Amino acid sequence: MMKDIGTELEIKCVNTIRMLAVDATQKANSGHPGAPLGMAAMGYALFDGFMKHSPANPEWPDRDRFALSAGHASMLLYSLLHLSGYDLPLDELRNFRQLGSRTPGHPERDLAAGVEISTGPLGQGLAHAVGMALAEARLAARFNKPGFNIVDHNTYVVCSDGDIQEGLSTEAASLAGHLALGKLICLYDDNGIQIEGRTSLAFGENVAAKFKALGWQVIGPVDGFDIPAVRKALRRARRDASKPSLIICKTIIGRHSPLEDSEKSHGSPLGADNAVATKKALGWPLEPEFIVPLEVAAHMRKAVARGKRAESKWSKLFSVYEKLYPADAKEFLSAMKGELPQGWESVLEGVIPADSKPMATRAASGKALNALFAKLPNLIGGSADLGPSNNTRLAASGSFSATDRAANNIHFGVREHAMAAVCGGIALHGGLIPYAGTFFTFADYMRPSIRLAAIMGVRVIYVFTHDSIGVGEDGPTHQPVEHLMSLRAMPNVTVIRPADAAETVEAWRAALLNSSGPTALVLSRQNLPCLDRAEYPSAANLHKGAYTLWQAREGAPDAIIIATGSEVEIALEAARALVDEGVNARAVSMPSWELFDAQTPEYKESVLPDAVRARVAVEAGIRTGWERYAGLDGEIVGMDGFGASGPASALFKKFGFVPGAVADAARRVVAKQKTKNGGSAS
Amino acid sequence: MMKDIGTELEIKCVNTIRMLAVDATQKANSGHPGAPLGMAAMGYALFDGFMKHSPANPEWPDRDRFALSAGHASMLLYSLLHLSGYDLPLDELRNFRQLGSRTPGHPERDLAAGVEISTGPLGQGLAHAVGMALAEARLAARFNKPGFNIVDHNTYVVCSDGDIQEGLSTEAASLAGHLALGKLICLYDDNGIQIEGRTSLAFGENVAAKFKALGWQVIGPVDGFDIPAVRKALRRARRDASKPSLIICKTIIGRHSPLEDSEKSHGSPLGADNAVATKKALGWPLEPEFIVPLEVAAHMRKAVARGKRAESKWSKLFSVYEKLYPADAKEFLSAMKGELPQGWESVLEGVIPADSKPMATRAASGKALNALFAKLPNLIGGSADLGPSNNTRLAASGSFSATDRAANNIHFGVREHAMAAVCGGIALHGGLIPYAGTFFTFADYMRPSIRLAAIMGVRVIYVFTHDSIGVGEDGPTHQPVEHLMSLRAMPNVTVIRPADAAETVEAWRAALLNSSGPTALVLSRQNLPCLDRAEYPSAANLHKGAYTLWQAREGAPDAIIIATGSEVEIALEAARALVDEGVNARAVSMPSWELFDAQTPEYKESVLPDAVRARVAVEAGIRTGWERYAGLDGEIVGMDGFGASGPASALFKKFGFVPGAVADAARRVVAKQKTKNGGSAS
Repeated sequence: MMKDIGTELEIKCVNTIRMLAVDATQKANSGHPGAPLGMAAMGYALFDGFMKHSPANPEWPDRDRFALSAGHASMLLYSLLHLSGYDLPLDELRNFRQLGSRTPGHPERDLAAGVEISTGPLGQGLAHAVGMALAEARLAARFNKPGFNIVDHNTYVVCSDGDIQEGLSTEAASLAGHLALGKLICLYDDNGIQIEGRTSLAFGENVAAKFKALGWQVIGPVDGFDIPAVRKALRRARRDASKPSLIICKTIIGRHSPLEDSEKSHGSPLGADNAVATKKALGWPLEPEFIVPLEVAAHMRKAVARGKRAESKWSKLFSVYEKLYPADAKEFLSAMKGELPQGWESVLEGVIPADSKPMATRAASGKALNALFAKLPNLIGGSADLGPSNNTRLAASGSFSATDRAANNIHFGVREHAMAAVCGGIALHGGLIPYAGTFFTFADYMRPSIRLAAIMGVRVIYVFTHDSIGVGEDGPTHQPVEHLMSLRAMPNVTVIRPADAAETVEAWRAALLNSSGPTALVLSRQNLPCLDRAEYPSAANLHKGAYTLWQAREGAPDAIIIATGSEVEIALEAARALVDEGVNARAVSMPSWELFDAQTPEYKESVLPDAVRARVAVEAGIRTGWERYAGLDGEIVGMDGFGASGPASALFKKFGFVPGAVADAARRVVAKQKTKNGGSAS
Repeated sequence: MMKDIGTELEIKCVNTIRMLAVDATQKANSGHPGAPLGMAAMGYALFDGFMKHSPANPEWPDRDRFALSAGHASMLLYSLLHLSGYDLPLDELRNFRQLGSRTPGHPERDLAAGVEISTGPLGQGLAHAVGMALAEARLAARFNKPGFNIVDHNTYVVCSDGDIQEGLSTEAASLAGHLALGKLICLYDDNGIQIEGRTSLAFGENVAAKFKALGWQVIGPVDGFDIPAVRKALRRARRDASKPSLIICKTIIGRHSPLEDSEKSHGSPLGADNAVATKKALGWPLEPEFIVPLEVAAHMRKAVARGKRAESKWSKLFSVYEKLYPADAKEFLSAMKGELPQGWESVLEGVIPADSKPMATRAASGKALNALFAKLPNLIGGSADLGPSNNTRLAASGSFSATDRAANNIHFGVREHAMAAVCGGIALHGGLIPYAGTFFTFADYMRPSIRLAAIMGVRVIYVFTHDSIGVGEDGPTHQPVEHLMSLRAMPNVTVIRPADAAETVEAWRAALLNSSGPTALVLSRQNLPCLDRAEYPSAANLHKGAYTLWQAREGAPDAIIIATGSEVEIALEAARALVDEGVNARAVSMPSWELFDAQTPEYKESVLPDAVRARVAVEAGIRTGWERYAGLDGEIVGMDGFGASGPASALFKKFGFVPGAVADAARRVVAKQKTKNGGSAS
């Protein structure tokens, strides 16, 4: 059996971390004691005196980044933060997993200072860390000058067997290896146990060989309870900055408890008796709970002073840098704050000339993106190998690679999930604005990372092209149907489906202005007419989410036809077709539910008057959900099933997305209202 | 430059396949010529005389399975099927990618005989193939007898760089290696090109070393244009049945065309000039198009006779087997047809005693599953390492492993996506009924494979537990919010969220009876009261999707409170609370939108009378979408954002899922209707 190795004080620190986890899970009567018990020494070795961080200023730009990919080991992180002097009082640890505490079951970014990323869904921490490391490499290339390495930090990860098993991790690790992100260092807690039992039940691969194949430096196995050994491995990892490093640490889950080396220690408190037995085994006082020995507190809090010194050294360097390179310094600080430079919007003028010919919104998006890049050189991103189709390529930049860090086009490969996570990690790091492109149907591959971006409220821009059956011949697997609705269902994602090129430009503007969550731009493959904005209201109305595009005549409308994206032209034509019948129809362009729902009740009433129930919603996607605006008495021209392979125009006809069918629906809802009113009057 | 190697006739066959792809993409004016040009020799080597199949009977149970994971190379498959004598006339190839054809842009199962699986989204074919191979291994262990290997076939895959890059493939390959699925053989088309250019832009890993680390036999690289070499590699792969095999085939995309070795040949027709140049380079007649030389047709159609011989040999063996083991034979044939054995439902009686104490629906699900297994020994599945929480373990069976093929519990590891795909593959193979468990929030990881199951219409049962903020302390990353709505948005998925143990049993029944698509069982972590069915209508009403559970008194209700799952008890209590105020409230349990929507208009009207607009919907999930039943005048007691970490009861209170809040909502909608009616009368 491996025993803890380190100085007496170090081992006391480690045991403090362990016992805090035992006490917190006991008190909460829920949680995961096994992982902190097993990882405490690894975590301690990293946090205390190795990692560059400043507990007094968790926002110091040049701090090392840390991702606890094994988020269930949250108590490990909370203990480390508390003991290192972050603003996380012991009372918060006592309040572990309680409503309103800053110590939730899984780490939540911004709830506690020092939590860089929300984790829990496995694989995400590691994959986001790849993005953090990528951001560091890119920013270093951009801002560092000879003698002034103002961006120079590592990204550390602690991950578990479960993280390694997720395909997402392999995708991200493959990309990290390919891009030679050598300042990424991952401590892998190889304890041989997962929830169903020994990992050998499900997991037989040679992890070391796999990571070597992915281009990583693999170190170990080392004894994860041997603090000097872990530090030595960390130093070795740091020495070779040409490859990301995986340090395999052999540990035992639930260490020192009667449940050690058993999955029983994973997801529930040890139980009172076992908690006592664990304390006894370590010679730890049985009470009170939540003991932090004075010498431990004193020792670990040195991180504060150490951090201040490190930061102060950096600040001095930066103040000289500021004098020598004032523009760069200003740009750096502003970018790290997530600000957009003054006047950035000016480049959007004229991107789409007023008299433009029909154009796919994906093409308009490419124009907007490239125009924006002139003012926003910190836009960085790419596609999961669909760049030419997604129009995500920055013409003015090269390809970011192991040898070229001064480029902003990322080739993510066919790794949609890692793309989303890496972009999340870039956003978390700060200094850059990431975007990620693929076919809309493959948004499904990215969904867990989209959700995490939404939970954390970070600015990631998804460029989803090929947004409906308009995909055409590629058929049902490539035609999104439910994707609009299922993204709208996700909180804090702003979904925008512009109707034409001008709305697309505004959609980019909205995406950049949304700094508190991700935005999904949903764009057509096929050409769409550019609405003549001399005739129709300005595309700037996009920012209100929905607006009246056209109405036959003044006054309350008899019917409202609501559409998004490529169906707006159909709605318009249908509305016009009703004029001769005396129906005062209104056509509404509704590019974004989220933006519309954020408007005042008055504005919403002005677009969709409550009294007008003769409503038709038109969208080349699933019907389900459109009742939100169409109501029980409206109609929805939408889909009920999957698409088909054929030319787009044939599909639009087949599925009823033609002005005639929409006008018929409008006629029916108008007639229904007449009957109703007649009925109630009789 | 590699040249084609084989007999003159073989090369002519290969060139026929190539030219059909060139002609079909030209004629369709869309599609992917590059991959078929590069893979034609590999495909030919496998299909003609190597693979065991019977074109005259594509349903022969003991055929080898084939998955074209690189689905964009669909013309390769269509040509192979046509030339091998499957029921796919040349006219269908002429009609490539046209609406109504059997030759869509990406292969769609059941559109063309011989297409085992719909592919296109990368990684899915390979991952599903792991499921097919797993099914073969399990069924062989179950049904084969000494001298009677009635289940004895291989599963072949053709995959591309893009497939390999998907994390899903690694997950599935890791599982296949661990489970030693040695009859799985994958031909990897290593052509060094992807859509954005050379694979080296994004992909630097050592694929051979990675697959070796995953426990695979890796063969090659071999020259993918050398037919004897590919066959030799295939034979070698087949010889070692202890490990799955990856055969790395070096090829050139767009082979023989002016665009060869360029991504330009990937996703668009070659263009008329290039098509002519390609034909000239091969000495191929420039016209007519779609030429199949007589000797090619004659040679490749021998597959029909060869297949009949193989099948006839098997049938003879099977008829002896049938005599010796009549029960096994009957069970085998019935299972392969997807039938449920007579009387299977009887085991469901009494699973939940009438007077049961409160019970989590996940616990009831575990009971139902285990009871069903007694009659349905072909139920097979497990969890992505959450078995003890998902209650997916079959107590009467062991763990399926490399050494125990006679067990039905699969340990998928923390590989949710592969789990979903593998279950899809098991269903496609036939003979088994797969189920897959995880926390509902992680359904996101599985989504692309759920979609494929829905598109293909195969019976996979997802056991999604921990279905809401009821998860409690694990916090927002682990609490599903939008998941119900986003799965309801997906066509052909039946989503069922039962209200109590009895409804859970019915939900399992419904899932098994649904043989034309996947079913998602959405289950609570926390205990729910078991409704006294002597007082309330039978839980068998679940099959109607929604039913009136309780109403204060006869007649038209004043208000309808609709709820699902854990919120049904809240709705009931709220409805009862309104009695004293004279409000005739109705409480509706609505476990499944899809089942309800399939009912007659009369039934639907009986549960939700159109005239009653005072409606409240209650669900501990996102509000968005419930307007479908609540209408514009109703209220939705739901969520607008993510959850929080804390005890479940505190969360239900915080987010307003308490009878008082629901009753208040009901009061408001009743008042609104009164005002409206008053208003229209005045």
